[in-house]
Amino acid sequence: MINRLVARMRELNAPVVVGLDPMMNYIPSQVKAAAFEQYGETLEGAAEAIWQYNKTLIDNIYDLIACVKPQVAMYEQFGIPGLIAYKKTVDYAHEKGLIVLGDIKRGDIGSTSAAYAVGHLGKVQVGSQKIAAFDEDFVTVNPYLGTDGIKPFVDVCKEEKKGIFVLVKTSNPSSGEFQDQLIDGRPLYELVGEKVAAWGEDAMGDEYSYVGAVVGATYPEMGKVLRKLMPKTLILVPGYGAQGGKASDLAPYFNEDGTGAIINSSRGIIAAYKQEKYAQFGEERYGEAARQATIDMIEDIRTAMPNNQ
Amino acid sequence: MINRLVARMRELNAPVVVGLDPMMNYIPSQVKAAAFEQYGETLEGAAEAIWQYNKTLIDNIYDLIACVKPQVAMYEQFGIPGLIAYKKTVDYAHEKGLIVLGDIKRGDIGSTSAAYAVGHLGKVQVGSQKIAAFDEDFVTVNPYLGTDGIKPFVDVCKEEKKGIFVLVKTSNPSSGEFQDQLIDGRPLYELVGEKVAAWGEDAMGDEYSYVGAVVGATYPEMGKVLRKLMPKTLILVPGYGAQGGKASDLAPYFNEDGTGAIINSSRGIIAAYKQEKYAQFGEERYGEAARQATIDMIEDIRTAMPNNQ
Repeated sequence: MINRLVARMRELNAPVVVGLDPMMNYIPSQVKAAAFEQYGETLEGAAEAIWQYNKTLIDNIYDLIACVKPQVAMYEQFGIPGLIAYKKTVDYAHEKGLIVLGDIKRGDIGSTSAAYAVGHLGKVQVGSQKIAAFDEDFVTVNPYLGTDGIKPFVDVCKEEKKGIFVLVKTSNPSSGEFQDQLIDGRPLYELVGEKVAAWGEDAMGDEYSYVGAVVGATYPEMGKVLRKLMPKTLILVPGYGAQGGKASDLAPYFNEDGTGAIINSSRGIIAAYKQEKYAQFGEERYGEAARQATIDMIEDIRTAMPNNQ
Repeated sequence: MINRLVARMRELNAPVVVGLDPMMNYIPSQVKAAAFEQYGETLEGAAEAIWQYNKTLIDNIYDLIACVKPQVAMYEQFGIPGLIAYKKTVDYAHEKGLIVLGDIKRGDIGSTSAAYAVGHLGKVQVGSQKIAAFDEDFVTVNPYLGTDGIKPFVDVCKEEKKGIFVLVKTSNPSSGEFQDQLIDGRPLYELVGEKVAAWGEDAMGDEYSYVGAVVGATYPEMGKVLRKLMPKTLILVPGYGAQGGKASDLAPYFNEDGTGAIINSSRGIIAAYKQEKYAQFGEERYGEAARQATIDMIEDIRTAMPNNQ
């Protein structure tokens, strides 16, 4: 799957992932009204609104990008109906040929991490059957519990040829509280980055390993160091756009040939219709606004890729 | 809820939580057979087995303890049907008067952490309605992303009078890889512990704050330091029993009056019927075996409580 992701990003010349984080206040009022009309102001109504919103977004962008990244929290907050909408989104994205990166940030130990890994990337044993439950292609994982938490994911990745992205340096303002703390003069995120590279060594695809890293766009100097520390690691970069990261900051995340990074935007794409720049589309044509914003983002990101300069 | 939890543990003289981690190989064969008979070897069949198993366990232990801790990964691996069984377990435990600690180890930033918080502890806004989705009383949270990740949980806790337990020092062998790294001569887990105490300061119950900590039973020396560092923090202690932690190691986790810690056992209780000690119950009477194992555990833990010595 890592080979397919890298190949598809190269083919499209678009190292971009769109985050499907359907916050209620992003969803256009006509979509919510129709869903509430059918299901009432219930969890089922919210889930229907999310699903219809996502479907339109996917229909408008699936040919431009390699991958979508649904943020499971935005579905999980609506309980079981919300998670059904999550699963429908994963399946529909697959139908349209997209790779799916589940932003689940799970992380536990031993058999518990193994349960998350089989539930999201692999197949769970039920009697004599093996059944895929959520069936994403990649997921994000939290490293705080160490190798015990990561190894079960890597095992499933090797079996299923899928992948993970481990949080190394996150894009938020307080990420430094623990991640930047110095250990023998080097920040914790570097130590985590080294582990990520090591975990990936025996789980290699053609160019990049099955074990990727998350490094926020908001810390380009750190991105530069981590790029060198993890040469075979695909870096998922959140924080572009709405969180303040600019294309000009992104060059250090790429390798020379323009691969090695995948840049995420969520709000900037899926709620593009709310921006003045895309106001001409109006609330009704939010899908077209998302398409135009994706095209614009890809063009902007290309200016940061070393092979395009 | 923290007041209720502390009061109930004191009333029962039992600072014990039973982990409902229904691994398929813990579930007695007759329970699985009945479920597969009805639903086939499907996710629904697995979920039915889990639900029946949990129901019997809860029926046998609800009067002995204050709290149960379902581990969501063990449900999530069975997809939507598994999560329905999780929710049924939460609701049934509530019906029987138990406090529910969802072991979800979520952690993200800003609006995403807020989504987890409202989905699990609070009420989510749907149009003009506010609806509780999973509705646990406490959940576990991962601190790697710093204050941005924790604050949204604390806000919901204050609103709902619920609580969280933040991972500080986990019980697994590789927990030291990052958690024990020295920062200015002190391990990272101490820094996290100090933050836990600080986050709890403006979210206080009568004796303990809404912000608890997870500290593994397998590291009693560290437990001692952390107990002092976080005097108003309830410590959730995993790792007793199956993971190697002994009652004699537990004294440092308690305050003088015998409060301040809640000790978890999962496999040791719910799969007690598999132990030689409880073999007389047989596979059929697994609920009674769990009850006896709970009684024995409480007695064992009491030997570690300063007020009982």
